[in-house]
Amino acid sequence: MSNAPDNGVRAFIDQNGGGFLDELAEWLRIPSVSADPGRAGDVRRSAEWLAAKLSETGFPTAQVWETSGLPAVFAEWPSGEPDAPTVLVYGHHDVQPAAREDGWDTDPFDPAVRDGRMYGRGAADDKGQVFFHTLGVRAHLAATGRTAPAVNLKLLVEGEEESGSPNFLELVRERADRLACDTVIVSDTGMWGPGTPTVCTGMRGLTDCQIDLHGPSQDIHSGSFGGAVPNPATEAARLAAALHDDARRVTVPGFYEGVVELTDRERELFARLPFEDEWFLETSKSGALLGEEGFTTLERIWARPTAEVNGIHGGYQGPGGKTIIPAEAQLKLSFRLVAGQDEAKIQRSIADWVAERLPAGIRHEITFWGATRPCLTPLDHPALESLTRAMGRAFGKEILFTREGGSGPAADLRDVLGAPVLFLGISVPSDGWHSVNEKVELDLLLKGVETAAYLWGDLAEHWRPAGA
Amino acid sequence: MSNAPDNGVRAFIDQNGGGFLDELAEWLRIPSVSADPGRAGDVRRSAEWLAAKLSETGFPTAQVWETSGLPAVFAEWPSGEPDAPTVLVYGHHDVQPAAREDGWDTDPFDPAVRDGRMYGRGAADDKGQVFFHTLGVRAHLAATGRTAPAVNLKLLVEGEEESGSPNFLELVRERADRLACDTVIVSDTGMWGPGTPTVCTGMRGLTDCQIDLHGPSQDIHSGSFGGAVPNPATEAARLAAALHDDARRVTVPGFYEGVVELTDRERELFARLPFEDEWFLETSKSGALLGEEGFTTLERIWARPTAEVNGIHGGYQGPGGKTIIPAEAQLKLSFRLVAGQDEAKIQRSIADWVAERLPAGIRHEITFWGATRPCLTPLDHPALESLTRAMGRAFGKEILFTREGGSGPAADLRDVLGAPVLFLGISVPSDGWHSVNEKVELDLLLKGVETAAYLWGDLAEHWRPAGA
Repeated sequence: MSNAPDNGVRAFIDQNGGGFLDELAEWLRIPSVSADPGRAGDVRRSAEWLAAKLSETGFPTAQVWETSGLPAVFAEWPSGEPDAPTVLVYGHHDVQPAAREDGWDTDPFDPAVRDGRMYGRGAADDKGQVFFHTLGVRAHLAATGRTAPAVNLKLLVEGEEESGSPNFLELVRERADRLACDTVIVSDTGMWGPGTPTVCTGMRGLTDCQIDLHGPSQDIHSGSFGGAVPNPATEAARLAAALHDDARRVTVPGFYEGVVELTDRERELFARLPFEDEWFLETSKSGALLGEEGFTTLERIWARPTAEVNGIHGGYQGPGGKTIIPAEAQLKLSFRLVAGQDEAKIQRSIADWVAERLPAGIRHEITFWGATRPCLTPLDHPALESLTRAMGRAFGKEILFTREGGSGPAADLRDVLGAPVLFLGISVPSDGWHSVNEKVELDLLLKGVETAAYLWGDLAEHWRPAGA
Repeated sequence: MSNAPDNGVRAFIDQNGGGFLDELAEWLRIPSVSADPGRAGDVRRSAEWLAAKLSETGFPTAQVWETSGLPAVFAEWPSGEPDAPTVLVYGHHDVQPAAREDGWDTDPFDPAVRDGRMYGRGAADDKGQVFFHTLGVRAHLAATGRTAPAVNLKLLVEGEEESGSPNFLELVRERADRLACDTVIVSDTGMWGPGTPTVCTGMRGLTDCQIDLHGPSQDIHSGSFGGAVPNPATEAARLAAALHDDARRVTVPGFYEGVVELTDRERELFARLPFEDEWFLETSKSGALLGEEGFTTLERIWARPTAEVNGIHGGYQGPGGKTIIPAEAQLKLSFRLVAGQDEAKIQRSIADWVAERLPAGIRHEITFWGATRPCLTPLDHPALESLTRAMGRAFGKEILFTREGGSGPAADLRDVLGAPVLFLGISVPSDGWHSVNEKVELDLLLKGVETAAYLWGDLAEHWRPAGA
C-alpha cells in the first residue's frame, strides 16, 4: 500500500469495514415497515437510531424531523470552506414488509452474512445505501486529514418512501431553507450489474388518470338495443386502443412536444451495456418485446415517453356470457414522461383528446391522480463528471450510464430546491428489492463507501456551482 | 250482433271471457319461478295445472313431459281432416322471479285486475299468451260448429325458458316425431303498441364468446417495463375497438357474407311504424343513437347483424392508480346474427381474426358459448298471410310488421322440426316483462283469443303445405 489518497481510503475501509457491517446489521434488525401501522414505533426507533449514528459519525447536526406521518432524519456537516458546493444526500430508512413465511431463507429482520452478501430486509433498499455514506465521509476525512468534509454535506433520509412518500413534498417545501443545496445525490437506485458499474442519469416522470364512462343509465339488453346505442365498454376499448398507432407511438396530440431526444453519444453508451433480450424477457416475465418503432428496448424504457393501460373494466365478468350493453366502463391509464415534456399541458391534451373521441350518449369524467416530473442529468454536468470519476476510481473500471424507467420523489427535490439530481447507487438487479431474500453484495457496498469518500474531494476540487 | 262468423267468435268470447280470466288468475297464483330451485315444486304444479286445463278444453292428449330439468306440457288435438296443416304452438309456463319488495304495487303472485289490466308475474310473459289459445280454440269450434279444430293443433309449453332453456333442444330432438308440424306459432312476443297491432317476422340469432389474453406471467411494473413489452389490457382493447370501423360496421372478415338484405317493401313497412327517437332513447335508457351507417334504428336492431362488448376486464380496478402492466385481460363479446349468416363460419372467422391481430407475447384462448340461429318469416309466406288476416279481423286494423332484436329458442324448433316459425304475440312494451308490476291489457288478451279463433280456419282454408 502506498500513501496515495486511494490507498488511504482503502486502508481506512479495510480497517473499519467490519464494524460498519456490524452496525448496518444492527439497523436492519429494526423492522421499520412504513406500510404497517403496527410498525410505526419501529420506524421511529429506526429514525432515532440513525440520528444517533450520524452524530457519532461526526455530523454536528443530526436530528429526527417530524412529518404529518412517519419521521425523517436530517443531518448536516458544514465544510467550513467559503466556496464549497453543498450536497444533499437523499435516501430512506423505511422498508418494505417482509416475513419469513414469504419464502425467505432466513429471518428478514435478523441479517445473515453468507457468501459475501448480507441478507435482510433493507440491506439494499435502502438502509445499506444510506449507511455507506457514514463510513464514506469518515474515510474521506481520514484519507485527506480534514476535520470537516470538503463539501457542505447534508443528508435527508425519509421514513415513508415505501408508502408512496405521502408527506415528503410537504416536508421538503417546509424545510427548503435547511435543505438548500447545489446538487442532490440520490442513493436509492442501482447499477447495471456486478461487473458493470454504472451511473443512473435519469428517471421517467409519471402522470396517471382514471376515466369513467357512462352509457345507458343501467345495463340494457344487447339483443333489444345492440347496434343502435353507444356501448361504454366499446368506447373505453376504442380510447385505450387509440392511444397507440401501429408503430406503437402515442397518438395524443402534442405528447412528444419538447421531448429531449437521445444524443448519438447516449444511444451509443446505452448500446455498450451488455443487454440481452433473453434476460430482459425473463425479468419482465414476458414472451416478446413490443414498443415504439425506431428504438431499442433500453431506449424505450429509459428515454421514451409511453402510455400504458393499467386497468380496463366494464360489463360482465362472471362465468359464461351475459348479453348486455353495460351502463359503465372505466379506464386507468398511466403515462411515463421524459425530460422536456410539460405534464400540465399533457394532462390537458389527454383530457381534450378523450372528450373529442367519445360519441354523443357517452358521458365521462377524467381524474388525474397527480404527476411526478422526470429527472435527467446532462452527461456533461460537472457534478456528474465528478461522480463518474469517483466511481471509476473505486471500481477501477469505465463507468457506463443507465437510466430508470420508473419514477420517484427525486424530481420533487430538484423542483423545490432548484438543484440537479445525481444518482449514486450500488445495488444490482439480483438484490431482490421488494422481494424475498433481499441482500446487498458486500464488496459493492464497500465500493459505495469508497465512491463517497472520493466524491466529496473531487466535487470540491472541480465544481464551483454558479450560486456558491 | 249478426250470425257472421266474426260475431260468433266475439259472442263466444263475450260470454266466456270472465271465466277465462278467472282461470288465468288461478294459474298466475302458482309461482312457477324456474330460476329458483326452491320453486321446482311450483313449476311442476304449474305444468300439471295446465295439462288438466288443456284436457278440460277438449285436447284429447294433454300431458306433462319430463326433461332433465323442469317439466314441459304437451297437448294435441287432431283435426280429422285429411289435408289439414299441422300447427305447433310454442310458449312457456315458467316465470321470472318476483317479490313484492322489488317495488310491486300488489303481490306479484296474487293477480289484481284494475283499469282493464291484470297485474301479476307471468300475466304477459308468458302464461297470458299461452292461455289465450284455450279460449281461442273453443271460440273457433263454437263459431264454426266443429268438434275438432280445422288444423291439427299441438301445444308445447316449456318450463325453463326463463332459465335459458337448458334442456329444450334435447327435448325437441327426442320428441321430434310427436312435435312434427307444418308451422310453429310462437306466442311469446309482443306487438309494437296498443294502437299498432303488428306481427313479428323474425328474431336475430346469437353467438357469444370469451377471449382470455395472457401477457406477463404476473403483473409487472409499468415504469420498469412500460413501453417495451405487450400489455394484454391494451391488446384486449385493440381487439374490442377493431370490431367496428368508423361507420360502425363489423370488421371481422366475411361477417356480412350471405346476410339477407332488407327489401324495399320491408324497409317501407318498418318506416310506417310510429317510431320516435325520444321513446327509443327512454326505453334504452341511453343518451344518443349510434349504429351502422346507412340504416335506421329499427333496421339496426331488427335486421342487421351486430357485435357488442358485453364485458372487458383487465388490470387494476381499485381506488386510485396502480402502475402495472397486468398479466391478463378478458373480453366477452356477443354477435347478433341475421338470416343468411352461417354461425359456424362466423365463429371460425372471429377466431382467426383474433389470432391474427394479437402480437407475439400475448397468448390467448377463445371459447364460444354456443349459437342461436336467426329466424325470418318471408312476408309472402301463406301461413304468415293467414296470421296477418286473422289478426286484422280481430283488431279491425291494418297489421304492420316488426322483428325482434333478441334471440330465442324458436330457431331450435325450426331447425329440428324443419318448419317455418310465425309469431303471434299480443303483449305491448309497457307490459313490464322481467320487471315490476308486469301486466297484460285485457282487451288485447281477448284480441289474442279472437286472432287464434280465426287463424285455424283461415290456415286450413288457404294453406296446403307441401308435405301435408
